[in-house]
Amino acid sequence: MFNFSLMGAGRIGKMHASIIDAHPDCNLKYIYDINAEFVNQLANKYEASIASSPEQALTSEEIDAILIASATPTHTEFITKGSMAGKAIFCEKPIDLDINKVDECRDAIKGTSVPIQIGFNRRFDSSHSKLQQANINNEIGKLEMLIITSRDPEPPGLDYLKAAGGFFRDTTIHDFDLARFILGDDPIIQVSAFGSQLISEDVKKVNDHDTAMFILKSKSGVLIHINNSRRAVYGYDQRVEIFGSKGMMISNNQTPTSVQKFSEKNTESKDPIHYFFIERYEQAYRDQFNDFVETIKNHSNPSVSFEDGRNALILANAAYESYNSGKVIDISYD
Amino acid sequence: MFNFSLMGAGRIGKMHASIIDAHPDCNLKYIYDINAEFVNQLANKYEASIASSPEQALTSEEIDAILIASATPTHTEFITKGSMAGKAIFCEKPIDLDINKVDECRDAIKGTSVPIQIGFNRRFDSSHSKLQQANINNEIGKLEMLIITSRDPEPPGLDYLKAAGGFFRDTTIHDFDLARFILGDDPIIQVSAFGSQLISEDVKKVNDHDTAMFILKSKSGVLIHINNSRRAVYGYDQRVEIFGSKGMMISNNQTPTSVQKFSEKNTESKDPIHYFFIERYEQAYRDQFNDFVETIKNHSNPSVSFEDGRNALILANAAYESYNSGKVIDISYD
Amino acid sequence: MFNFSLMGAGRIGKMHASIIDAHPDCNLKYIYDINAEFVNQLANKYEASIASSPEQALTSEEIDAILIASATPTHTEFITKGSMAGKAIFCEKPIDLDINKVDECRDAIKGTSVPIQIGFNRRFDSSHSKLQQANINNEIGKLEMLIITSRDPEPPGLDYLKAAGGFFRDTTIHDFDLARFILGDDPIIQVSAFGSQLISEDVKKVNDHDTAMFILKSKSGVLIHINNSRRAVYGYDQRVEIFGSKGMMISNNQTPTSVQKFSEKNTESKDPIHYFFIERYEQAYRDQFNDFVETIKNHSNPSVSFEDGRNALILANAAYESYNSGKVIDISYD
Amino acid sequence: MFNFSLMGAGRIGKMHASIIDAHPDCNLKYIYDINAEFVNQLANKYEASIASSPEQALTSEEIDAILIASATPTHTEFITKGSMAGKAIFCEKPIDLDINKVDECRDAIKGTSVPIQIGFNRRFDSSHSKLQQANINNEIGKLEMLIITSRDPEPPGLDYLKAAGGFFRDTTIHDFDLARFILGDDPIIQVSAFGSQLISEDVKKVNDHDTAMFILKSKSGVLIHINNSRRAVYGYDQRVEIFGSKGMMISNNQTPTSVQKFSEKNTESKDPIHYFFIERYEQAYRDQFNDFVETIKNHSNPSVSFEDGRNALILANAAYESYNSGKVIDISYD
Repeated sequence: MFNFSLMGAGRIGKMHASIIDAHPDCNLKYIYDINAEFVNQLANKYEASIASSPEQALTSEEIDAILIASATPTHTEFITKGSMAGKAIFCEKPIDLDINKVDECRDAIKGTSVPIQIGFNRRFDSSHSKLQQANINNEIGKLEMLIITSRDPEPPGLDYLKAAGGFFRDTTIHDFDLARFILGDDPIIQVSAFGSQLISEDVKKVNDHDTAMFILKSKSGVLIHINNSRRAVYGYDQRVEIFGSKGMMISNNQTPTSVQKFSEKNTESKDPIHYFFIERYEQAYRDQFNDFVETIKNHSNPSVSFEDGRNALILANAAYESYNSGKVIDISYD
Repeated sequence: MFNFSLMGAGRIGKMHASIIDAHPDCNLKYIYDINAEFVNQLANKYEASIASSPEQALTSEEIDAILIASATPTHTEFITKGSMAGKAIFCEKPIDLDINKVDECRDAIKGTSVPIQIGFNRRFDSSHSKLQQANINNEIGKLEMLIITSRDPEPPGLDYLKAAGGFFRDTTIHDFDLARFILGDDPIIQVSAFGSQLISEDVKKVNDHDTAMFILKSKSGVLIHINNSRRAVYGYDQRVEIFGSKGMMISNNQTPTSVQKFSEKNTESKDPIHYFFIERYEQAYRDQFNDFVETIKNHSNPSVSFEDGRNALILANAAYESYNSGKVIDISYD
Repeated sequence: MFNFSLMGAGRIGKMHASIIDAHPDCNLKYIYDINAEFVNQLANKYEASIASSPEQALTSEEIDAILIASATPTHTEFITKGSMAGKAIFCEKPIDLDINKVDECRDAIKGTSVPIQIGFNRRFDSSHSKLQQANINNEIGKLEMLIITSRDPEPPGLDYLKAAGGFFRDTTIHDFDLARFILGDDPIIQVSAFGSQLISEDVKKVNDHDTAMFILKSKSGVLIHINNSRRAVYGYDQRVEIFGSKGMMISNNQTPTSVQKFSEKNTESKDPIHYFFIERYEQAYRDQFNDFVETIKNHSNPSVSFEDGRNALILANAAYESYNSGKVIDISYD
Repeated sequence: MFNFSLMGAGRIGKMHASIIDAHPDCNLKYIYDINAEFVNQLANKYEASIASSPEQALTSEEIDAILIASATPTHTEFITKGSMAGKAIFCEKPIDLDINKVDECRDAIKGTSVPIQIGFNRRFDSSHSKLQQANINNEIGKLEMLIITSRDPEPPGLDYLKAAGGFFRDTTIHDFDLARFILGDDPIIQVSAFGSQLISEDVKKVNDHDTAMFILKSKSGVLIHINNSRRAVYGYDQRVEIFGSKGMMISNNQTPTSVQKFSEKNTESKDPIHYFFIERYEQAYRDQFNDFVETIKNHSNPSVSFEDGRNALILANAAYESYNSGKVIDISYD
């Protein structure tokens, strides 16, 4: 039985609390959050203790592992302290919005040997991962194109936008990681980015994008397209397409039921797709956590490493450089 | 070049006139119809002559072949006279609504050697015929079930209903033939029929059905289901499913375009399917005629014979017997 | 917290044990099975006690509710004893294969007031139940046709077949119930049944069917078609179609992922559908149990009553009568 | 009745000959081609005269209209001579591969008043044009993204590649035009291009691309993605997606039949899509010609103008500039 500390009791923290609690080998021991109401509520529900300080949650001898779902600026501190205390770490994406802070953390944890896994949940979606397996197993031959469509159902509020670090670092970072995941050992070497303000007044206020497109190129010549939007009225649009010398595979959207409707106006109509990430990636979040627990058990390397988190940020930063300069940016991961 | 007489200048006659005219090896020579306006219009359009009598159209020395698209009660007379005059015959379904008239005609033409083809157009639909080929080629293994869904977009008027000979003989006869076509040399040996009056007041006036279901059994034990309706608001619903020991194939509905719509309410919505038989079976009607022309050219046996027309009527009659008696009816084709 | 006795520790019992254990308001207290190995294993896994006799499990004062998943011949006895002891009863389908035993049980429990729910799980499938709601809410207008396709992935072994009570009572009974569920308060009044032996040598040995088709008629004239097979190589085929004056809705099959493949030979290919009922109806089994717990909590009437279980058996019996006589059978539910 | 001269009797010329011949208001009068065998064959088939020189075909008094389907380098000369002789002109894309020759032609024809239509057939595809209409009619709200997938079934040979003017001018030019068509009066103002050599040795020999991706931006901020390949093993992949504030519409691929297959390995499998442009865009080519004939009849402006042909080339040229410089290119249409 592994005892967990949960850092952060907000929306995503609540989801993780429920997943930890349901796992037969895990126990939710401590919860820490600066918001007393949130932490009380969650501690009551899962009969967990409230940590009086981050340090207690991060370093207590009772604790085996830490799940970091707190605000982004706290991530590197919690990763550093937790891993130096010998705890296994699961940290929600991103590691940080600032590559310098990420690199400082990277230096600080160099000597530690605990597993540190970053929360790129989409890698664990059974449909997306089927495409990754198909590519590895050469089922579509030599990969030539990868196309990722990723659109949120509706834009977040102004407060979220102010703290999010920009559309490319907040949202596209998932797609950059998913592209890296599917490409396997073929690294992305170029990035080009386009953005528009078409949807949200709040997005304009923070001078961000709400509509964006990207082209990336891998070392072997694979061309990758990503498109992102802050609003899709039909739900959380999540599609991946791989195209190669022997065929194509598409990981398509998913509707809550398998019902099709036929009327005077429409035929084969399905319901809107899953509304947002918690519904759409329910299975992925669960399997991601199962995978982390297996990593702890087996002392194996985490499926999604600190370097994966850093590399996705490097791509997001390159995307901004491309957008600002109107140039294709060559990537260096050093 | 084959010279054709067209008997009947109504809706279906017009369609056939256009097909004959477009065929590079055929010439529309004579048209006969009791309706002067219809016949004038069509003769003008295709620069054909108006036959002053059925006899002229059926027996003129200039004529090679006759396409019968006139009212059902004239079919057997025209078949008989035309075939005795040595003309190749294409006759729209049904041969007649009365099995006695069909059998008299059958006797009368016994000595003739011209091809006589009956207009069961659905056999020539490229999707349905792919299923028939798949069955013949054992692609789904031993056939176990056959399911035909066939629903008109809206009920016909009272005049049509009065002359139509009842739902099973007017509509289901197509499905009985399609079932026979797909089964190949495995004959249907039992029929059971159910009917309801749910849609049309006119249907009630003529004491007919507008909603019907059937189960048939073949000699080898294949179970066949047919369902029919006089109204489907989403268009002309035409589906066929074959199920066997190695899999299943479905000939599905067809929409005019390949557009899918996604909105707040629906996803993957297609437009309504083709409205009715002239749009849906356009390719089938054309290929059916091409096939008939090849039959004339090659002196081969017609793909859909007089016996096929008779056997479909025998099944329709058995369906009425089943409906009236509440019993499964064993079929005799003698 | 409700304490449950589980009667039967076989395949379906194991599934129910897991569902009871996972429910926040339920506790698996006793397990009874004549097979010591099965009962030990399950009792260990869920920290439950082993009942030394059915009576202990059925009548113990510690027990609030009984879940009957034992062999069919024990059902009526367990229902009777449990309900007379004041326990809420959930009993897997069928109540019994013999209508006389069902009627004796019905008489015996007449005075009791506990909820008795029968395990027709398909009513709780979110796609199928969406069709039922659509019908109730008049979304497709007046219902005119209902078509249920229900095919198992592969035939069971000889032992199962010997005890199963025949294809119509073992398998079609689910579809009879589903038809009754979707029809709402419009009762089925006629049944006609066809069967074939096409698949399994074991089925022939017990003189049963492995391929079957049915037509039923409701009081209001709705025509219902059901088709069943003991083998579908592409998985557990479970489809429902409702057709009415304003349109159609289909509850379609479900694949484990949303991946589509495109190759030289095939396009838009999906994987085989879910293999069998435990995978396909996972959500339905869970929601069925949640519903039963709500029934206990709220002292409400069970969603699927003893009468529902009895009526489905009456339809199955009528189907045999139809098959044996070659006649349409009028139904009496008295 | 309009008399046509056909310039060019190759693959695409043959197709146009058949379309001209089938049109009730058109007559194929002259055919010109430097290849005597090609021109003889076609002239025989359609009972047309062989023009002894381009001039005869382009300027004969008997001629009303000219269809130019000859080699690209002849286009501007034929357009100029034909239009100065007062003939209506239909010219296959591209006008020319060299913008200077296009501009010379543009100057030369300035005084003429005949309609000149360029052969961007995809605008006439009923599915693609439905998307364009939907955008104009605001059916998906404000357009935000446009995504065009266009992949050939297999790469052409070396001779074709040498004369084709490069992948972007040969192939993507269709997609640039389709994007302009769907955008309506919202001009494309920026282009960025990526290319790879992944498929064909012949493509490498001519130092061309066989895999390419593009991002374009319109004046109103719409982001446009195009991807192209010289090879898709599943057929001629032609998809268009428009995404806006109220929803999304997709013009999807089309298979020759509506058959779906279900087996141990795959479910809902369709056949490969149409092999190439002549099959896929059969309806579009026919309707494109009908539209041109209506333009002649009504003295209206052609649906696809000389300027449309020139603008698509400007975008292709900008794409090469982007590829060579690694920069986003701002477009000037002057």
